[in-house]
Amino acid sequence: MAFSVEERGRANTLDYRVYFKNAEGTFISPFHDIPIYADEAQNIFHAVVEVSRWTNAKMEIATSDPLNPLKQDVKKGNLRFVANVFPHKGYIWNYGAIPQTWEDPNHKDRDTGCCGDNDPIDICDIGDKVCVRGDVIRVKVLGALALIDEGETDWKLIVINTEDPQAPEYNDIEDVRRLKPGYLEATFDWFKRYKVPDGKPENQFAFGGEFKNRDFAIDTVKSTHEFWKAMITKQSDAGDINCTNTGVADSPFCVSAASAEAVVKSTCAFGPEVSIPSSVDKWFYCEK
Amino acid sequence: MAFSVEERGRANTLDYRVYFKNAEGTFISPFHDIPIYADEAQNIFHAVVEVSRWTNAKMEIATSDPLNPLKQDVKKGNLRFVANVFPHKGYIWNYGAIPQTWEDPNHKDRDTGCCGDNDPIDICDIGDKVCVRGDVIRVKVLGALALIDEGETDWKLIVINTEDPQAPEYNDIEDVRRLKPGYLEATFDWFKRYKVPDGKPENQFAFGGEFKNRDFAIDTVKSTHEFWKAMITKQSDAGDINCTNTGVADSPFCVSAASAEAVVKSTCAFGPEVSIPSSVDKWFYCEK
Repeated sequence: MAFSVEERGRANTLDYRVYFKNAEGTFISPFHDIPIYADEAQNIFHAVVEVSRWTNAKMEIATSDPLNPLKQDVKKGNLRFVANVFPHKGYIWNYGAIPQTWEDPNHKDRDTGCCGDNDPIDICDIGDKVCVRGDVIRVKVLGALALIDEGETDWKLIVINTEDPQAPEYNDIEDVRRLKPGYLEATFDWFKRYKVPDGKPENQFAFGGEFKNRDFAIDTVKSTHEFWKAMITKQSDAGDINCTNTGVADSPFCVSAASAEAVVKSTCAFGPEVSIPSSVDKWFYCEK
Repeated sequence: MAFSVEERGRANTLDYRVYFKNAEGTFISPFHDIPIYADEAQNIFHAVVEVSRWTNAKMEIATSDPLNPLKQDVKKGNLRFVANVFPHKGYIWNYGAIPQTWEDPNHKDRDTGCCGDNDPIDICDIGDKVCVRGDVIRVKVLGALALIDEGETDWKLIVINTEDPQAPEYNDIEDVRRLKPGYLEATFDWFKRYKVPDGKPENQFAFGGEFKNRDFAIDTVKSTHEFWKAMITKQSDAGDINCTNTGVADSPFCVSAASAEAVVKSTCAFGPEVSIPSSVDKWFYCEK
């Protein structure tokens, strides 16, 4: 299955959007229309890359906008860039989300005791390749970290791009610990402290910050897929999520290709990237 | 004093060069013609940025080429990129050299017991700003690490760009340790291991890897300036160093502006950058 993107507006401005198309050229929602599974029997999932490794712009699936393009998060009217928390530079993985999943804000997680964060489930791709935002990759799920972000459950799945030459050697969380020494510790440290430079407290974790294994992580993805299914078929309350899609047959939110195209064409025309403010280059140091 | 650059060839190819000009538009050598001091009384030195923070291309002053442009180091016919040694991404400072200094390969350092590496003395600028290669900045020297690179003394000066808003708070090596916790340890770790992914052993250090303080570092810079003076006035053997310059009045290697321009114009015309091979994006993991 081949997907492509169409950029609108100018990168690093409030107007920038990345829309998705399927192989037929129909605009789709990356949240709702890209199948969760690339290969269900093998537990290979699709993942949408929102942020390239070593970059700072907090790009994300715009869950409340029609067709859910990627757009940059905005805080108090300003484009949001994650800080560089020493020794890290930007995001330390390709970061993104698994389509057709939803961390339901009305469901309290049995393990974490907190409700979902209202987003598709997040992934950290540890493959060697630096992906481009908007890439749709196929990933193996290796484990999960239960971040509690301002009181909400926000799972971070550790995955590897199946295209990575070493992917066959990675089958569970312990393989990451063994083959990429320090990476899980850095991942924990990153999520714990990434909002500290913005004046926020350190994040908390369920399970004492322990990484859960592959089987647990896959079960978690599957349960978020069920929450998504209930939402997209209007069996649960979608809240502020925009469920517009062009390909989910049993969804009351399914619209025509022409309607979808009209959504995209109503946005700002694509233009050249604007340069990133140099303040984003600052390195922050926190005592551990 | 204002300097500018003229790029020739295409970045990330063997032909790429960055030539320097002075305020009058005369081509100069960044090695020989940029004064060592920006403010001698205050011990503020000029530094030429060869590599921007977080990049990988090993750009350096081409010591044996006329006018000593920046060019990318070549190993076995291939452009050299430093590996990303986890958790680091590329160079972790703006990296460069102080003009009018020379680590004389015929002089055995009293402290390290090794001869110089035949290059101007290297700097690691710890300022917040990501500089552009070819920038000429004014720096405060804070300390030094005595790397022994394949048997040669290769001092690494820790400096801060005087334009950094925090520069007044940095006056000696202990200020770096206090205000940027972890940075000196990361710097040591970086130099120790940066050639390991290329199949080389870990680098060694004099003084047990201890960072020397500001006064020691400044004395070291001054002694390398004396070695350079002897070379440029032909009082010592320059070996394969190209001493061509346009502004050192008492140097027998001083040439006219027209000669210098002829050197630059004989090189490949400037063209668009070539993309960096994706193999450069790999992250290497070593057990510490």
